[in-house]
Amino acid sequence: MANKELLQPYRGTKDYYPNDYSRLDYIFSVWREACMAFGYEEYLAPLVEDRELYTQKHASGDEIANQQLYWLTDQGGREIAIRPEMTPSVSRMVGARYQQLQKPIRWFSVANFMRYERPQKGRVREFFQLNIDNFGDSSVQVDVELIEVAIHIMRLFGASSKMFEIRINNRKWFSYWLEHVVGVTENEQQVSRIIDNLAKNTEEENSQKLGDAGLTPEQIDLVLRLPQLQIDDLAQYLDKSEGAAELYALMKSLEEKGYKEFIRYDASLLRGFDYYTGNVFEQFDLHPDNNRSMFGGGRYDDLVELYSGISVPANGFAPGNVTTELFLDNWNLWPEFENNTDVLVTVFNEELRHKSWGVATSLRDAGLFVQLYLKQGEAIKEQLSYANKSGIPFVVILGPEEDEKGLLVWKNMISGEQRVVKLEGLLEEVTNGHAD
Amino acid sequence: MANKELLQPYRGTKDYYPNDYSRLDYIFSVWREACMAFGYEEYLAPLVEDRELYTQKHASGDEIANQQLYWLTDQGGREIAIRPEMTPSVSRMVGARYQQLQKPIRWFSVANFMRYERPQKGRVREFFQLNIDNFGDSSVQVDVELIEVAIHIMRLFGASSKMFEIRINNRKWFSYWLEHVVGVTENEQQVSRIIDNLAKNTEEENSQKLGDAGLTPEQIDLVLRLPQLQIDDLAQYLDKSEGAAELYALMKSLEEKGYKEFIRYDASLLRGFDYYTGNVFEQFDLHPDNNRSMFGGGRYDDLVELYSGISVPANGFAPGNVTTELFLDNWNLWPEFENNTDVLVTVFNEELRHKSWGVATSLRDAGLFVQLYLKQGEAIKEQLSYANKSGIPFVVILGPEEDEKGLLVWKNMISGEQRVVKLEGLLEEVTNGHAD
Repeated sequence: MANKELLQPYRGTKDYYPNDYSRLDYIFSVWREACMAFGYEEYLAPLVEDRELYTQKHASGDEIANQQLYWLTDQGGREIAIRPEMTPSVSRMVGARYQQLQKPIRWFSVANFMRYERPQKGRVREFFQLNIDNFGDSSVQVDVELIEVAIHIMRLFGASSKMFEIRINNRKWFSYWLEHVVGVTENEQQVSRIIDNLAKNTEEENSQKLGDAGLTPEQIDLVLRLPQLQIDDLAQYLDKSEGAAELYALMKSLEEKGYKEFIRYDASLLRGFDYYTGNVFEQFDLHPDNNRSMFGGGRYDDLVELYSGISVPANGFAPGNVTTELFLDNWNLWPEFENNTDVLVTVFNEELRHKSWGVATSLRDAGLFVQLYLKQGEAIKEQLSYANKSGIPFVVILGPEEDEKGLLVWKNMISGEQRVVKLEGLLEEVTNGHAD
Repeated sequence: MANKELLQPYRGTKDYYPNDYSRLDYIFSVWREACMAFGYEEYLAPLVEDRELYTQKHASGDEIANQQLYWLTDQGGREIAIRPEMTPSVSRMVGARYQQLQKPIRWFSVANFMRYERPQKGRVREFFQLNIDNFGDSSVQVDVELIEVAIHIMRLFGASSKMFEIRINNRKWFSYWLEHVVGVTENEQQVSRIIDNLAKNTEEENSQKLGDAGLTPEQIDLVLRLPQLQIDDLAQYLDKSEGAAELYALMKSLEEKGYKEFIRYDASLLRGFDYYTGNVFEQFDLHPDNNRSMFGGGRYDDLVELYSGISVPANGFAPGNVTTELFLDNWNLWPEFENNTDVLVTVFNEELRHKSWGVATSLRDAGLFVQLYLKQGEAIKEQLSYANKSGIPFVVILGPEEDEKGLLVWKNMISGEQRVVKLEGLLEEVTNGHAD
């Protein structure tokens, strides 16, 4: 007798029964369709890597490397970890063959990952991610294309501009602004942290903190007005700040392509700045019940070198299944999933089993997904009830009377209508795509 | 500077660069196509499970549980293991919801697994497996269907009956034969082990060993002639041995369906008998350079109860990517994989970038996989060379002359031919599936 506790999956992981898997598979399909539409090719990295790939200096954030990594020592004494993210692996792969690979490298993968999280809404321990990246091209056009792919994914999901927003900033421009516009040359990290949390505190609290960091009243005023900065305010800095020029070009190019309603310059967007080097973006769900970041992305020109020793311009993003599922839940965007099976071929009695099997095989060869009823000695009524409960839309009945005349019954389980047809005629209908 | 050793994947795992991934993905697609054709539905289980699921009494073989398991203690003190196989997980899932699930349960999954193996040809540490199972139906027709699916998979791969063979036996029949035909009532395990290795030793050695196990010369003679046993020799035992009746029904049903050339009754096939309870099979590659078992399958009516506490008839099999890859290699059955991208839209100059982008978008909307050339300032010659090296079959060129006339150049990179066309006409050709 088994331990009943063993019937449950490990905390933070999920059993994907077919109904659940259909939803996961739908997300995977949309991700793949969007990436392939833009000419990206699928790759896959190993499930585990040397632990050091994640813990080496300046690699994955401290939280991932120290607190969230699932790792073990193998029987040969090597410390390995289950991948918590794809960037180290894909950087390693790009680095190992960079000279031979045709540039630009347009790659994507769909894979499972693990992080030791405290399970809660939106946080699980095993999750799935699309990773799409472009390596070897530092052009701002790459930045444009990747945001275009992100929007394309959302459109394939049926999302409109009311449902999500892509907030855009530039790391270099922010640094330039802080140093040359505001004039902050000390305590930059401290000031950045305050700016990152501007929206969470009152204006008074923010002023107080900025004052404590040594800013003058004029400087504090500039910082407090940062969130109001518009993209056209950057026009005067294009010659002075490379970051401003990149950001301006990205925004204008996206606007020119008709994406204005999906994007917004957010001068106070700083998340992920440890990682990114140029244009960055973060996609937000705009639903009032789930107003949260879905994922981030952007240019990370220094990271491949860290993992591979080779300097490679790079840009990418990585949406996950969990925030995507929440988004599709909240906006009610899931399609209807039907049973994959098209037809149940019933078996009237054991004498007719072989002929029924022949019908099933012919329908399968014509491209349908077909179940043959296997259990012996069940009445047709039971078999129809099985089709009904399973949501199988069509049923074939081949009784002795039909068999004598070389016919069979084709029953539509949804309308309840049934027709007596010849197999050849039915196959022709199936091949032409209209067997109702 | 990164550690150069970190550029390599962990021993026994593989980096699937897009060319390699195409091959893996082809195997996955064939597996899925075959399972869905027979009305099986996809599910997925967690990557990790409680270690106990694998180590509890009589679960996974001792080798997997003790020597090959990748396991760790999580930060909450729970011992978890990366799945080395799917059966414990899927049995757990079936057990947890058996009452609510519509029977028979036709399920399959495609997933990654890890076992600590000594890497060598055909043995890796991370591998991928199809697991297809039918739960809740003890009918021999289920045994028939699953072997039919195994053959269907091989046919989709383009394999003929010269390339592989499915060897079939029945566990209960073997036990009956040993006890009632040969008359062995002691040392059954020892005798079974000798039988399992009959082919590896000389007749003299086998006789010696069987004699040591206490068999009489007559008994030894019967055992040595076991491999010659034919399915029709079982006719006289059908009333006496349930196993003989199951095996006979399975073989005759497969023969009636036209599969005779793919199957063979192998009375000395004992592998996996710890696990299986009725009809069993093992698929062999017949290539002289790779004459080996590819995978096994069969009925395992006791195993779900072990993992879930609920008695459930079950039958299934699980081919892996590694033996499949070797099979396709040896028999030269791989299809040609082309670049996924259909079209490269070149950018003549920055003034024409936006119009070129519009062409790319229109072609994408028409269903093609389209790359837009992103790097700025590259000559058309360079862009064509990129398409050529990347194996992209079609290229669009939109120069100032064409633009003035509302035309574009559509170039076939394989034939070298090019035509000047209107975008609308081209889109119509694409929609109708014949833009050459």
